[in-house]
Amino acid sequence: MSEKHLQTGDALPPYGGKLRLFAMRFCPYAERTVLVMNAKNLQYDTVFVNLDHKPEWLLNYSPKGTVPALEYEEGKGIFDSNIINVYLDEKYPDVPLQSTDPLRRAEDKIIVELFAGVQSAFYTAAYNSQALQPNMVETYHKGLVALQDTLRARGTKFLHGETPGLVDFTLFPFLERFEALPLVGKPEFELVKSKYELLVNYIEAMKIVPAVKLYYLSPETHAKFIESRNKGDANYNMLDTSGVCCMRPRKKKE
Amino acid sequence: MSEKHLQTGDALPPYGGKLRLFAMRFCPYAERTVLVMNAKNLQYDTVFVNLDHKPEWLLNYSPKGTVPALEYEEGKGIFDSNIINVYLDEKYPDVPLQSTDPLRRAEDKIIVELFAGVQSAFYTAAYNSQALQPNMVETYHKGLVALQDTLRARGTKFLHGETPGLVDFTLFPFLERFEALPLVGKPEFELVKSKYELLVNYIEAMKIVPAVKLYYLSPETHAKFIESRNKGDANYNMLDTSGVCCMRPRKKKE
Repeated sequence: MSEKHLQTGDALPPYGGKLRLFAMRFCPYAERTVLVMNAKNLQYDTVFVNLDHKPEWLLNYSPKGTVPALEYEEGKGIFDSNIINVYLDEKYPDVPLQSTDPLRRAEDKIIVELFAGVQSAFYTAAYNSQALQPNMVETYHKGLVALQDTLRARGTKFLHGETPGLVDFTLFPFLERFEALPLVGKPEFELVKSKYELLVNYIEAMKIVPAVKLYYLSPETHAKFIESRNKGDANYNMLDTSGVCCMRPRKKKE
Repeated sequence: MSEKHLQTGDALPPYGGKLRLFAMRFCPYAERTVLVMNAKNLQYDTVFVNLDHKPEWLLNYSPKGTVPALEYEEGKGIFDSNIINVYLDEKYPDVPLQSTDPLRRAEDKIIVELFAGVQSAFYTAAYNSQALQPNMVETYHKGLVALQDTLRARGTKFLHGETPGLVDFTLFPFLERFEALPLVGKPEFELVKSKYELLVNYIEAMKIVPAVKLYYLSPETHAKFIESRNKGDANYNMLDTSGVCCMRPRKKKE
């Protein structure tokens, strides 16, 4: 799979008859949907898009120009990671990723809702660090302590149960990126093992879930992307190997 | 029912064994849940709270101190209007308010998501009018035109169908308040009948739905509340008749 991000002026690749996901390789929201599709063993194509120079056709699938967007039928899309993921879970119920109990489903959504402050602190730390206030560092750690407490209270390997569910796939893309913060000069965001033992074990367990492992990127890779974006030139295609994996060596420039 | 809003220092009324909703009489988000509970014929108690001087116990039910919050079991709460309403619809399925089709449920959520810009323009116009920009008036009307187009495309009396559903009860509390904007000096937000005939008819049809009628307030009442809040002294208790409805005339002051 090429990880080249299509941009303004690029043509929409022909529809292949499968579900098609519009994503950006480093976007945690898009990752949420990738993980859910992987966990449900769905067949799908991915189209990566450059969010600084969006291809015109993205708006047909996502009126706000955000990713992820899902082409569920040729030319027809829905957007928003949470909306897409609930849709996928309901439409393709073979591998159910939500509890059958309405209250538990509500509680799972509340975990995600309460995590919003942590996400927002992460974004400020990563991409807008001159606006970073001490209270955001506090919000971040308070939210992570609360998450760890919830994990402890539930007493299961994952938040969903002995296997991960929608709630886990919704939070994990952010947890994956938090480890990059100390690498971009934000040591106060480190998840110190002595304080976060349970949470760190949970993150490690998530990393080896097959649905996650397929798409996981190292803290170093995330740090590299964050730094490129902060320099004003987000390096969307840094993982693209489509140009180098061809069998013939490329012709030298003369 | 008293519409007195409890505040810091006030005791939590004893639990009555029913579902209990924490709300604020003029809050559109809380109204969403009131309408859903009414439509589902649920038995429930309401506790109104002063959002400027929140009672301490509100945080037990809603960690962010927002309304609505639902006490679904003594001492246990969930919050966020959309989370509560999906929970209620799934837990009490006798009067179903969502489509049985996963895609249609996703599309309903997208309608709500796309309406967020309209809501936000309303809030700026009502409560922060010095920050009002021409592009917000545009966003407002663009969103309403899109909503009217969706109504036309669906071809049903309500967005949900021939009876209103979750999507209608989610949007209506805002539509109800939009009519107050011309009364608080914002004529550019009027829903002019010639442009919005279908939408205005829809709003009128919503107003006489029994679940809505029970809780509906006039544009004049909303305008009065908006003005009191803009003066820095939100008049939460302006509808409270608990002091005047007793059988004995009040003793005259001497």
